[in-house]
Amino acid sequence: MASINENYLKLPGNYLFAEVAKRVKQFRAEHPQANVISLGIGDVTEPLAPTVINALHKATDEMAKKDTFRGYGPDQGYAFLREAIVRTIYKNRGVDVTPEEVFVSDGAKSDCGNIQEIFGLDNVIAISDPVYPVYLDTNVMAGRTGLYDAEKQQFAGVVYMPCTEENGFVPQLPKEHVDLIYLCSPNNPTGTALKKSELEKWVEFARQEKAIILYDAAYSYYITEDDVPRTIYEVAGAKEVAIEFRSFSKTAGFTGMRCGYTVVPKGLMGYTKTGEKVSLHQLWQRRHATRFNGTPYIIQRAAEAVLTEQGQREIKQTIQYYMENAKLLCAGLQKIGIEYIGGVNAPYIWLKTPDGMSSWKFFDKLLEVTHLVGTPGSGFGPSGEGYFRLTAFNSRENTEEAVQRLQTKLHI
Amino acid sequence: MASINENYLKLPGNYLFAEVAKRVKQFRAEHPQANVISLGIGDVTEPLAPTVINALHKATDEMAKKDTFRGYGPDQGYAFLREAIVRTIYKNRGVDVTPEEVFVSDGAKSDCGNIQEIFGLDNVIAISDPVYPVYLDTNVMAGRTGLYDAEKQQFAGVVYMPCTEENGFVPQLPKEHVDLIYLCSPNNPTGTALKKSELEKWVEFARQEKAIILYDAAYSYYITEDDVPRTIYEVAGAKEVAIEFRSFSKTAGFTGMRCGYTVVPKGLMGYTKTGEKVSLHQLWQRRHATRFNGTPYIIQRAAEAVLTEQGQREIKQTIQYYMENAKLLCAGLQKIGIEYIGGVNAPYIWLKTPDGMSSWKFFDKLLEVTHLVGTPGSGFGPSGEGYFRLTAFNSRENTEEAVQRLQTKLHI
Repeated sequence: MASINENYLKLPGNYLFAEVAKRVKQFRAEHPQANVISLGIGDVTEPLAPTVINALHKATDEMAKKDTFRGYGPDQGYAFLREAIVRTIYKNRGVDVTPEEVFVSDGAKSDCGNIQEIFGLDNVIAISDPVYPVYLDTNVMAGRTGLYDAEKQQFAGVVYMPCTEENGFVPQLPKEHVDLIYLCSPNNPTGTALKKSELEKWVEFARQEKAIILYDAAYSYYITEDDVPRTIYEVAGAKEVAIEFRSFSKTAGFTGMRCGYTVVPKGLMGYTKTGEKVSLHQLWQRRHATRFNGTPYIIQRAAEAVLTEQGQREIKQTIQYYMENAKLLCAGLQKIGIEYIGGVNAPYIWLKTPDGMSSWKFFDKLLEVTHLVGTPGSGFGPSGEGYFRLTAFNSRENTEEAVQRLQTKLHI
Repeated sequence: MASINENYLKLPGNYLFAEVAKRVKQFRAEHPQANVISLGIGDVTEPLAPTVINALHKATDEMAKKDTFRGYGPDQGYAFLREAIVRTIYKNRGVDVTPEEVFVSDGAKSDCGNIQEIFGLDNVIAISDPVYPVYLDTNVMAGRTGLYDAEKQQFAGVVYMPCTEENGFVPQLPKEHVDLIYLCSPNNPTGTALKKSELEKWVEFARQEKAIILYDAAYSYYITEDDVPRTIYEVAGAKEVAIEFRSFSKTAGFTGMRCGYTVVPKGLMGYTKTGEKVSLHQLWQRRHATRFNGTPYIIQRAAEAVLTEQGQREIKQTIQYYMENAKLLCAGLQKIGIEYIGGVNAPYIWLKTPDGMSSWKFFDKLLEVTHLVGTPGSGFGPSGEGYFRLTAFNSRENTEEAVQRLQTKLHI
C-alpha cells in the first residue's frame, strides 16, 4: 500500500498565490466588464531588454545548426554564465566569490525550496514573519515542523521572528538556539532591507551558533540606500555562514524565463550528528547533479546578456521605471491616510489595512470596490495579519489608474 | 549547529555520468590530439527541428513587446501545451488523459527525482536492476533506504529486480510486497521494452498490492515493435495505479532545452497510515505550486511546435536517423562477436563485456584503445556489472568511425 507524505496534510489551504489567482479568476468570471489591475502576485510587466532578445535569437540560431547545437549542459551551469555572474555581481563590489561556488538554476524559488534537502530534519529553522511563504512551506513538507496551530497561525517547532511596527519591520536575533536562518533582504513582502550594521549582527550570531544563514537577495537590484549591502558577502565572515540565492526574475524581467543562481561557498560546513564537518558545497553539488539537469542553454545566454554593460544599463532603466511606480503608490497612500512602509529599497509596499480590517477582508473589498488586486499580508505569516502588499510591477498608466481608484473609490 | 542530511553520505562515489565526464576530461587533457567519440552519456547530437526553431524565434519576439510579453506562467504549464500533449500523445492512441492531469516541467529527470517527495518514507521501493540511477539515488537521499553494502553493491531495504540474460533482461514481479515500483520502458540502459502482456501483469500486480507504478516512458518514440505500448495508459486499469513520466529530450533533441511532463491521473490514490485515501494528483499539484515556478514560456512554445503535424514529421526523421545508427552499431558488434541486446525499441545497445571484463575496466580500455566513450553497466545497478551501454546518439559519420574502430582496434 503506497503511503503518502503526511507532512503535506499539515499545510492549511492553498498556496498563497494560487488562492489569490483563484479568487481573481472567480471575480473576473462574475464581472467580465471589470478592468482588473493586478498589483498582486509580484509579476513583472515590462518586456525583456533588447540585448536579451538579441541573445535569445542568436542562441536559437545556434541550436538550429549541427556545429553549434548544444545538448546537455553542465548541471551547475555554463562557465560563461557563472563567470559573468562573478564578474558583474560580486567582483564589481569587491566581493570574493568564485565561479565554482555559483550554481545556476531554473529560479530562486526552486533553490529556496530545494536547499533544505541537504540539511537534517532535526534543524531548528528561524524565519521572518511575514515572509515569502516558500521557505516555511518547503520545511513543513519535508517534516521539519510540527502541526499547524490554527489559532496562533503558526507551525509548532518553528522560530518565528515577528517583523512589526514596534521593531521597524526588521527581524530580531532569536533568544533561543536556531540552526537554519532564512533572511530575505530586501524583504518580500514588507519591502524593508537589512542595513550593514544589522547584517553584521546576524553573521556574528550565526558564527556563534554554528548556524547557516539562507539569504534571499532576489530583490537586491532595487536597493537605493547606500548602507544596505547588495550581497551578504559584503559582510566580513559571511562566506563561513551564508548561502545566497539570487534571481534574474525581478532583476531583468525573467519571471517567465526561469533563471536564478545560488552561491554555496566552498568553505561552508554543516555537521553530522557526531560533530564531523561536511562540505555543504559538495552536498549541494551532489543534489544538483542528481536532481537537476541544468538550465536551458538559450536561457543561460539570455542571462549572460543581462550581465553585459549594455544589458545592465537596459535593465536598470526598467527597474527605475518600476521604482517610480512605487513612489506614485506611496504618495497616493499617504494622501488618503493609509500607513505603509517599503517602496524605497524594494518594489513592494506594505500597507496597514484601514480600520483594523483583516488582510483577506481587505483583499475582497479592494477587488470589489476598486478592481485592484493585492496580496493579503496574513498569507506571509501571522504578523502579516492586518497588512497588505502592493507591488510596483505594472505600467505607469495602470499604476496611475490604480492610485486614482484608491483615492476616489476606496472610502475608508 | 546546522546538521546535514546524512542520507547523502550513504551514496558511494560520484553520480554516474559525472564520473564518466570526469574520466573523459582527464583523458582529453592527457591526449589532446585524440579524436574522442562519445557514445556515452546518451546526449542527442542533431540540431532542433526547423519548426521548433521558428517557434523559438516567434516566442522570443513576443517577449520583446509589452503587449505579448509573458511573465510567470501557470505552475502546471500553459494550457496550449497541455492540450497539445493530450491530443498528440494520448488521444491519437485512443488513450483518455485530460489536460488537467498533465504537469509540464523542466525535464523527466527532475520529475523522476521529485515524485518520491509526495510519498511516505516507509514505502518499499522496487527498481529494475540495471536502470537509470536517478530513481534509486533520490530515494537514498530522501532516507527511504538503508546503508549501502559495497560487496553486494546494493542498498538495504530496496527490492532490486535483476534484469539478466536468464530472464531476457525484463523485470519480474517481486515475490515480496512492494509499494512503489519504478519501471522504465524502453529501459535505459538495456534497451529492452515491456510488451503489452507483460505490462498488464504489472498493472494487475500493482492493483493487488495497492502499489503505485512510476513509469518512465522517456524513450517511447524509439519503439518500433507493435506489441509494445507507447504509454502505460494503453493498459486497462493503469490510470488507477500509474504515474507516467515523459520527455522532449530524446524525442525532439531537447536535452539542452529542458522540458518534460508527468501525468498524474485524477483518480490515483495514496494512503495515510490510518488507511484514508488521499489524491496523489492533489499532492503533486501542491508540490508543483510550492516548489516550482513553471517552464520558460519560449521553451513551452517550442515543445508545442514538436507536437504539430509538421513537428512530428521532422522529429521522427531524426529518430529514424539515430535508429539507423543503432543498426550499424549492432551489426558491427555482431561482426566482432560481442553479445548485445537493445537497439530495436531504444537508442541504447547493451553489450556484454568481452572476457568477463568489469564494466569500468572495459570503459577505460575502450577509451584508451579506441578513444570511444560508453557507459559502464555497473553504474546502473549490480546486475549491470559485466555490461556496457552504447548509444545511437551521434552523427552517421561518427557512428561509422566508431564501428570501424571497434572492428580494427579492439582486439578481444
